[in-house]
Amino acid sequence: MLRTHTCGELSLLDVNKKVTLCGWLQRSRDLGGMTFIDLRDRYGITQLVFNMDSLPHLCEAARKLGREFVLEVEGTVAERSNKNAKIATGDIEIIVTSFTVLNAAVLPPFTIEDQTDGGDDIRMKYRYLDIRRAPVRDALLLRAKVAAATRTYLNQQQFVEVETPVLIKSTPEGARDFVVPSRMNQGEFYALPQSPQTFKQLLMVAGMDKYYQIVKCFRDEDLRADRQPEFTQIDCEMSFVSQEDILETFEGMIRHLFQEVKGIDIGTLPRMTYADAMKYYGNDKPDIRFDMRIAEFGDLVHGKNFKVFDDAELVVAICAKGCSEYTRKQLDELTDWVKRPQLGMSGLVYARYGKDGSIKSSVDKFYGPEELSRWMQACQAEPGDLVLILAGNEHKTRKAMSELRLEMGERLGYRNKDEFKCLWVLDFPLLEWSEETSRWHAMHHPFTSPKPDDFANLATDPGSVRANAYDMVINGVEVGGGSIRIHNKEIQQQMFQLLGFSPEDAQAQFGFLMNAFEFGAPPHGGIAFGFDRLCSLFGGADSIRDYIAFPKNNAGRDVMIDSPSAISIEQRKELGLL
Amino acid sequence: MLRTHTCGELSLLDVNKKVTLCGWLQRSRDLGGMTFIDLRDRYGITQLVFNMDSLPHLCEAARKLGREFVLEVEGTVAERSNKNAKIATGDIEIIVTSFTVLNAAVLPPFTIEDQTDGGDDIRMKYRYLDIRRAPVRDALLLRAKVAAATRTYLNQQQFVEVETPVLIKSTPEGARDFVVPSRMNQGEFYALPQSPQTFKQLLMVAGMDKYYQIVKCFRDEDLRADRQPEFTQIDCEMSFVSQEDILETFEGMIRHLFQEVKGIDIGTLPRMTYADAMKYYGNDKPDIRFDMRIAEFGDLVHGKNFKVFDDAELVVAICAKGCSEYTRKQLDELTDWVKRPQLGMSGLVYARYGKDGSIKSSVDKFYGPEELSRWMQACQAEPGDLVLILAGNEHKTRKAMSELRLEMGERLGYRNKDEFKCLWVLDFPLLEWSEETSRWHAMHHPFTSPKPDDFANLATDPGSVRANAYDMVINGVEVGGGSIRIHNKEIQQQMFQLLGFSPEDAQAQFGFLMNAFEFGAPPHGGIAFGFDRLCSLFGGADSIRDYIAFPKNNAGRDVMIDSPSAISIEQRKELGLL
Repeated sequence: MLRTHTCGELSLLDVNKKVTLCGWLQRSRDLGGMTFIDLRDRYGITQLVFNMDSLPHLCEAARKLGREFVLEVEGTVAERSNKNAKIATGDIEIIVTSFTVLNAAVLPPFTIEDQTDGGDDIRMKYRYLDIRRAPVRDALLLRAKVAAATRTYLNQQQFVEVETPVLIKSTPEGARDFVVPSRMNQGEFYALPQSPQTFKQLLMVAGMDKYYQIVKCFRDEDLRADRQPEFTQIDCEMSFVSQEDILETFEGMIRHLFQEVKGIDIGTLPRMTYADAMKYYGNDKPDIRFDMRIAEFGDLVHGKNFKVFDDAELVVAICAKGCSEYTRKQLDELTDWVKRPQLGMSGLVYARYGKDGSIKSSVDKFYGPEELSRWMQACQAEPGDLVLILAGNEHKTRKAMSELRLEMGERLGYRNKDEFKCLWVLDFPLLEWSEETSRWHAMHHPFTSPKPDDFANLATDPGSVRANAYDMVINGVEVGGGSIRIHNKEIQQQMFQLLGFSPEDAQAQFGFLMNAFEFGAPPHGGIAFGFDRLCSLFGGADSIRDYIAFPKNNAGRDVMIDSPSAISIEQRKELGLL
Repeated sequence: MLRTHTCGELSLLDVNKKVTLCGWLQRSRDLGGMTFIDLRDRYGITQLVFNMDSLPHLCEAARKLGREFVLEVEGTVAERSNKNAKIATGDIEIIVTSFTVLNAAVLPPFTIEDQTDGGDDIRMKYRYLDIRRAPVRDALLLRAKVAAATRTYLNQQQFVEVETPVLIKSTPEGARDFVVPSRMNQGEFYALPQSPQTFKQLLMVAGMDKYYQIVKCFRDEDLRADRQPEFTQIDCEMSFVSQEDILETFEGMIRHLFQEVKGIDIGTLPRMTYADAMKYYGNDKPDIRFDMRIAEFGDLVHGKNFKVFDDAELVVAICAKGCSEYTRKQLDELTDWVKRPQLGMSGLVYARYGKDGSIKSSVDKFYGPEELSRWMQACQAEPGDLVLILAGNEHKTRKAMSELRLEMGERLGYRNKDEFKCLWVLDFPLLEWSEETSRWHAMHHPFTSPKPDDFANLATDPGSVRANAYDMVINGVEVGGGSIRIHNKEIQQQMFQLLGFSPEDAQAQFGFLMNAFEFGAPPHGGIAFGFDRLCSLFGGADSIRDYIAFPKNNAGRDVMIDSPSAISIEQRKELGLL
């Protein structure tokens, strides 16, 4: 190596050692008699000292070096008079005796500091400079650490890492596929996998018993904020298991990851049914860092001539602790917030539970003190609290209340990024009805098995059938999901039929899997974790983008390499695309 | 888990334990009073016993079970009277008390045994059954082990695993790209990476210092035997290194892999220049499990009126130890072998060094005993050896002699799959001239740096310039290759110019990399290993196919899922392909 040490490892133990360091010039300070340079590499920052008295030419030369120059520096480790406790090497500095400029640098388009003046677009274009900044670099190092800890755990549990193919077959179920035209079979296409689902099931049929892979998946979707066309999954599957085995195994994995990566013991994961999650939190990925459960007011409010509540399919309330003194302005602002088109509520009803025990609501005309008191009870409100009530169409109101709950949690500081609350959500419905396509869709995917107890209802009342499906939720984010799979050809056929496949289509697209089930498929199930999201959660970030080395923007473009781009006429001709 | 133990772990220590096993029926034997079933899972095989006397109904039921049925079996561990030392569980058997058929199986299309009656095509179509066979299963387990050992070593050496994108940009240099039409940017395409080369270099510019990835790469080539359109690389890059640092680091890696995976200490790797490899072995990936170096006869044979040698650009010989007694028939057969169109030699000259010290050649008319004796010396032949000589066009003859050497090594049993001889080949030429395109091509790739000593010749005599490039060769197979890269924009531009790029083309395709070099690129270099090949080598196999879970056939098809395939008109319209 051109260096003897990195910029992150020297300490008082090394004083008087002759060392060679390599790195980038982070900043320099010229104090007349002395020049100081902070030299940076992946491992840290070390202070270099050039002395005008002893080596004037060297010091002069050092003063000409610009930001981000790449240097190889020789010198002697010395104790600092002015120690810097903030950095690992803060007790020492290097008295430089010679240096070489390994490469010069033009002025970067943004400042390479923790806080940068670069906007998103410019940072993406010069991603290789953005990664030099500690927050982005640390995000990528964290990601590598999470991957390594994941593999350690799964290897210990006798999972086998198996690579599944990237060039597979297009299957219209699910999101849109990216396709790859075949030159050797013109007019035909490969597809990039949205997940290795069918392959991992085939690996179970193949007897691999326990499979995992940290694997790239692809979805050609219109990108919302924080979706990427290519993303990474921790993909796992096990044979001869019940749902309980999967929950235990992967609860163990997430516990291991928190311990290894964050040094946190998250304990045992609570479990909640889908039905309870919807009822108490308004969605299937509850943020349980705070309680603030949703109360259903139904019978409590009907029949008192308040038309808004009487006409509503659903009336729900939450209790905001200690908010009874919210000003009129604050309440108006919250009302506007729920009326935004994204939520579309017609208004917000509130009731203040004064510290003196009095209750005052915005609908005092219709409800007397006794009724309001019952409301307080239903919400477990205490003096000093504020109760917020929404009413309307069931689906919309539940969703809006879920959002309002999260918003209040945010405002009240309940959603601390350094606190982690994980849980399992269980017993998802097998199917959901789509008004758009007028047919049943698989809530998880078509390979998910119905609960044996509910199996009899599959033909008569499909909507009531629960699945052996489970999600892992952390801080209100679904980080993983999976199911016990169907391993019987007839049941799989029945499922495709329910989903509107003709027998021919089912056979053409998934025949290879159904045929495989005939040759002795074991009971099996699995789970997949969104790896990018999991890493950003560990890092305490809202966006996954900085946890991906070279992400694409919201238009699916890599602005650094300028891709996608035109290809040559010859290439198109060879592929039969012209 | 449905089981208490796997089929590979019970021993005499477990006798009298009540256990539950799950697995596949490998075979059953009905001995009248008793029925034996071998139950198989990933971990091994355990013998089950059903007793007609004690549990006649159970035994009757067991007799009806077919091959590959999936069973859950309860019973008691007992010591076997007839122990089987060949399997880990051979000391015990399970006295079955009850069982459940978890899934039935139809008759497999080929026998699921180590030796199978299935041809390649049928095995590929039912790959999930083929993987149940121990040789294929073990190949995949070996692969996982090699991957894990690779990561352990590189993590210990502070390499960071970074995922680079799969949807990148098409660059015509190198092999043909697979492309992915962009729906959101119609008429534009992503390309799948042939390697993450430019991204790993950008990661060095980004200061990541040491990068690795075990990563899928893609080449749309006409597939020869044992090439796959998607393949896996161990891809690595380091900053602030000399070539020596890379050689040491990755010599360490391969030593670690052999130790961990094969339990072999391969010692220190010898090093050979490209020039010596070509001279003594006729190719740049010498198999040094055996010596048999090629001798150049040039001056030894010219001017004796033997036209074939006089007209030849190159006359080369090898010595086959102990083969002086080869029959006429054997020699004729070897002559035919070198005359095959693949080699295209016009004939084979030989000289037998009899055990009695006499030398007889097929060209005794032209060369006397003294000359023949000098030949023997040049080849280091001893009494009892056979010298084989080829002559003709330099390139063709060198290649043919290389092949003949390998063939003789094979015939003489020198190429033992359980012996491993690794070496570094160094000092490759930077460029090679292509008659086809009438221009220089990069021998490694356009990012490889010339040796500083040869740099001055780049403009005047490009063919003489050596590169800071290196290959790792094991048993005659190139398993890895890399180089110290160019990290200076001007030199990179000069290289593209040499390779026939216009400045505009160079900027359009690789501008992002050259621009990055302006912002302080460190000296850097790296290497990539062919992971599929490395695994097959560890497994002692000639083909990589069984080391890939779901390989494609020579036409680039996945015959199991039937891909590539047609996509719907709607899909094509959405992509602007109709």
